[in-house]
This record gives sequence, structure tokens and C-alpha cells, in this order.
Amino acid sequence: MNRKELFNIIKKKKSFLCVGLDTDINKIPKHLLTYDDPIFEFNKQIIDSTHEFTVAYKPNLAFYESQGSKGWDSLEKTVNYIRSITSEIFIIADAKRGDIGNTSALYARTFFETYDFDAVTLAPYMGLDTVSPFLNYENKWSIILALTSNKSAADFQYIKDKKDINLYETVLNTAQTWGSTSQIMFVVGATKAEALTDIRKIAPNSFLLVPGVGAQGGSLEEVAKHGLNDHCGLLVNSSRGIIYASNNIDFGKVAGEKAKELQVEMEVYLGDKGLL
Amino acid sequence: MNRKELFNIIKKKKSFLCVGLDTDINKIPKHLLTYDDPIFEFNKQIIDSTHEFTVAYKPNLAFYESQGSKGWDSLEKTVNYIRSITSEIFIIADAKRGDIGNTSALYARTFFETYDFDAVTLAPYMGLDTVSPFLNYENKWSIILALTSNKSAADFQYIKDKKDINLYETVLNTAQTWGSTSQIMFVVGATKAEALTDIRKIAPNSFLLVPGVGAQGGSLEEVAKHGLNDHCGLLVNSSRGIIYASNNIDFGKVAGEKAKELQVEMEVYLGDKGLL
Repeated sequence: MNRKELFNIIKKKKSFLCVGLDTDINKIPKHLLTYDDPIFEFNKQIIDSTHEFTVAYKPNLAFYESQGSKGWDSLEKTVNYIRSITSEIFIIADAKRGDIGNTSALYARTFFETYDFDAVTLAPYMGLDTVSPFLNYENKWSIILALTSNKSAADFQYIKDKKDINLYETVLNTAQTWGSTSQIMFVVGATKAEALTDIRKIAPNSFLLVPGVGAQGGSLEEVAKHGLNDHCGLLVNSSRGIIYASNNIDFGKVAGEKAKELQVEMEVYLGDKGLL
Repeated sequence: MNRKELFNIIKKKKSFLCVGLDTDINKIPKHLLTYDDPIFEFNKQIIDSTHEFTVAYKPNLAFYESQGSKGWDSLEKTVNYIRSITSEIFIIADAKRGDIGNTSALYARTFFETYDFDAVTLAPYMGLDTVSPFLNYENKWSIILALTSNKSAADFQYIKDKKDINLYETVLNTAQTWGSTSQIMFVVGATKAEALTDIRKIAPNSFLLVPGVGAQGGSLEEVAKHGLNDHCGLLVNSSRGIIYASNNIDFGKVAGEKAKELQVEMEVYLGDKGLL
């Protein structure tokens, strides 16, 4: 999916919501455990009831890997299921991979060929080698960690160099030289919404994937205020607040309601920004 | 496996060799493709012929993931096979994972419970949260990227802060406060062997996992000279130089010979250091 197509879907759905499919076998409603593949069944029902309000899904790979090869089957079925019901969804492998070139090439093959993802999250520590094999795929995206939403993000991301520039700012500056704004997005945690103003100075045209709204405490209003640009430029992720909103047989329906609440709020911000 | 046990195996085998199981379906000898699981069959023969000279194996997860769920089955069989033939091997999941706490907890569950690895490689960009769930497992190890062997390592790892300290040095300093030298190792690329002297000043007692010897151009002699400490403190990895030394039916035998060559050289360095 290219940048224009993504923006068109955002305008059509009046939403920049990404639903995080952090599907934990220990947290899903118990009645699903009788299914052959409870994780896929859970995802299917979540997808059915949320895709109308959602422009992206983001399975976090850790949740699938923890189930061994079965989990990878669930993941593949999930991606294929989304593709089978709609062409208007951007799918992100939240994998946070990063390795030397020949290894990154294999990760790229995994996520863009073995599985039909649109994007993959990448850790920047090892530099350009980590990212370049992913950039060889047309209409596919690399989403690079810049400022993360966790407490210990400060351990390294806020280290200032001699010019008083934080490491995460250097990552933003450097990674923009590696590829275009149609190839590279950045992860910026919503718990640092006030930092978005500064980030928009460094990366005015980039899409930002913003986790941390909801369970991690970030405010959607703040994120929209500081982060929206002239082609939206945001994908705001919510995982636990949507997929685990109910733990009963109605979990799909309740997830749909929660997703719709966020979509309605997003529609206001998109309208205020003149994007609809 | 704890630190003392690891050192004992090193002394017994007179080796600090780690064999990287970067098993690529496109690179293994063609006659293996008739097997049900060619990747496992390749690994099995490599393990049979090298384990006598080797203290560790390091499957690089990218190679298994690129095969989808089948690849994870091959990985599981490989780990279980090693465990079935010897208790004297340290097994590293070269995964370079790194995520927020609840996600890292799942990765830890994957590598230390679903699969029986001794250690996992981790990217430090997101800080302590990334590592702490792994530290909760007794006799398991976190191997944190410090200075990597790839060309673009310099993009961020050599950024100097206001006190003239490189980012990789800050990672070494900070991560040592997170856990003991029986819990944390560091990845240090062999292509930067001269940097090992400085690294040993910062982390004198830590084990270092050193990739990049052989195909990537690093010298074992230099690594040993600058890196060995009083309990060895090194695991030197070779992947392509061993596992792809022959592409014929004799690939296992040739891999064994290559591993033995390195072991013999390592025995000299261990002896010179008075460790045998």
C-alpha cells in the first residue's frame, strides 16, 4: 500500500486507528478455548467487528511466537483473513527486528513474502543495514523505533550528543536520509505527546505510529493536536483498550464499540484539521 | 546453565567456539531437499560433526522465521536434538528482540519455556524494560547488543555524548547495572577487535559473544588477544565459515574439520592465558 492509498483509506473511514492484535491465549475469553485455533478465532471476531472503524491492524509478534509454530499459523491465518475481507487495511508486523544485512534480508522476505504484511517495525540500533533490505520492496514500509512509550525509553533514547541532540532525534534525522516518507514511518509513544511538537519539526511529513493510547496512559486528543499533518501522518494504536474491553461472549461487539468511539473522536480531529 | 558450568565446559572442550546455525534453505546441499525437514536434517548433521569442538550453538531466528511455522518446527527439533545428545552445550537464540515489559515477558516465555534456550540476544534501544523479564529466569542469559560487526554500526553506536562516551560504551556501562555477569553478556563484533581492549576496561568480567570471525573478516587471534579474561569471557561465533564450508554430501564432515581447526587454535590461546 502506498502513501496516497493509505491517506485515502484514512479519509474514507474517517479514522487513523490501528488495532493492536496482542492476542494472549491467557487473556482471551475462555469459551474460545474449545476452538481448534482460539487465537485465530479471537482475532477473526475482533476483525469482523472493528475493521469498519480501523485503518490498520498490528499483530505483535511476541504473542504469536510464544505459542511456537502453532502461533505462526494463527498469525498467517489472521493476515490472510484480513486480506480476504477487505483491501482497505494496512497490516503491520510489530516485530521490532534489527540485524545485519543478510539477516535483515531474510526478515524482509518473511514479513513481505512469506506473510503479506504492509509494514514491519524495526529497531535502529544497528543502523542502516537493518533497514535497507526492507526498502527494496515497493509499496512496503519500515517503521523505525524513535521514541518509545515505555518507562525505560529514557535509558538511551534521551542521551544527548555534543550538539545537545537526543539520540531519538538523531534517529529521526538519520533515518529520513535512508528512504522517502513513502517508505519509512517512525514509532513515537503517545505517553510523550508533548514531544510530538518537536518531532514534527524534525519529521514534518512522516507517518508516525503512535502506541500507548489507552492502557499505557496516552491521550488521543493530545496526540492529534501535536501530531496531525496535512496528510494525517498518524496511525494511533490501541490494543488492550479495545481487544480486551470485554472478557465475555460479547467481546467482539464490545471491541467494535470501543473502536467506534475512537473513530468518532478521530473524525472530529480530522475534520478540525480540514482533512475530510 | 550458569557461569561456572559454562567455564567448565570451555575448559573441558578447550574451546570457546559458537557455531551459528544460520541455516538457509537456499544454501544447503541439494541432496537434503528430499528429506521431510531439510533444515533440521542439515542442522543435525552439522551438530553431530561439530559438537565435540563447540561450546555453543546460535540459531539465527531470521532463517527459521523465513520458513513460516515449518521453520519454527525445525528450530524446536534442532534445540531438542542438541539437548538429547549432550548437556554440554550452551544454546543461544539469536533473536535481537526488544520491546516493552509485557511483550518482553512473552519473548522470555517463548525462548526460555516454549523453547529450551540458555540465552537470547536483545537490542538495547528501549532500555531496561526490554531486558528485565529475561532476568527473572535463573541460569538463563540476556546477551545485549553493544558494538555490532556490521558496517552501519557506526550510524548510532559511535555517537558520542557530552562526556565523549560512545553510545555502545554507555550501553555497556548501563546494562551492567541491570544484572550480574552471570545474567548478562554483550555482543561485540570481531571486526572491531581493537575496540575489545577498551571494552574490557568497561566490562572486564562479562562474557562477550563475538560474531564476525571468518566470513565477516574478523581475526580470531586478535579477538583472543584483546578479549580473553580470567574465566575465558568469550564465545566466538562462526557461521558461514563452518556450516557452508562444503556444499556436497560431505558437508557435515567438512564442517567438523573447520570447527576442529578453530578449536585447536582456541586451545593455544586458552593455554597461553593459563586457563587450561
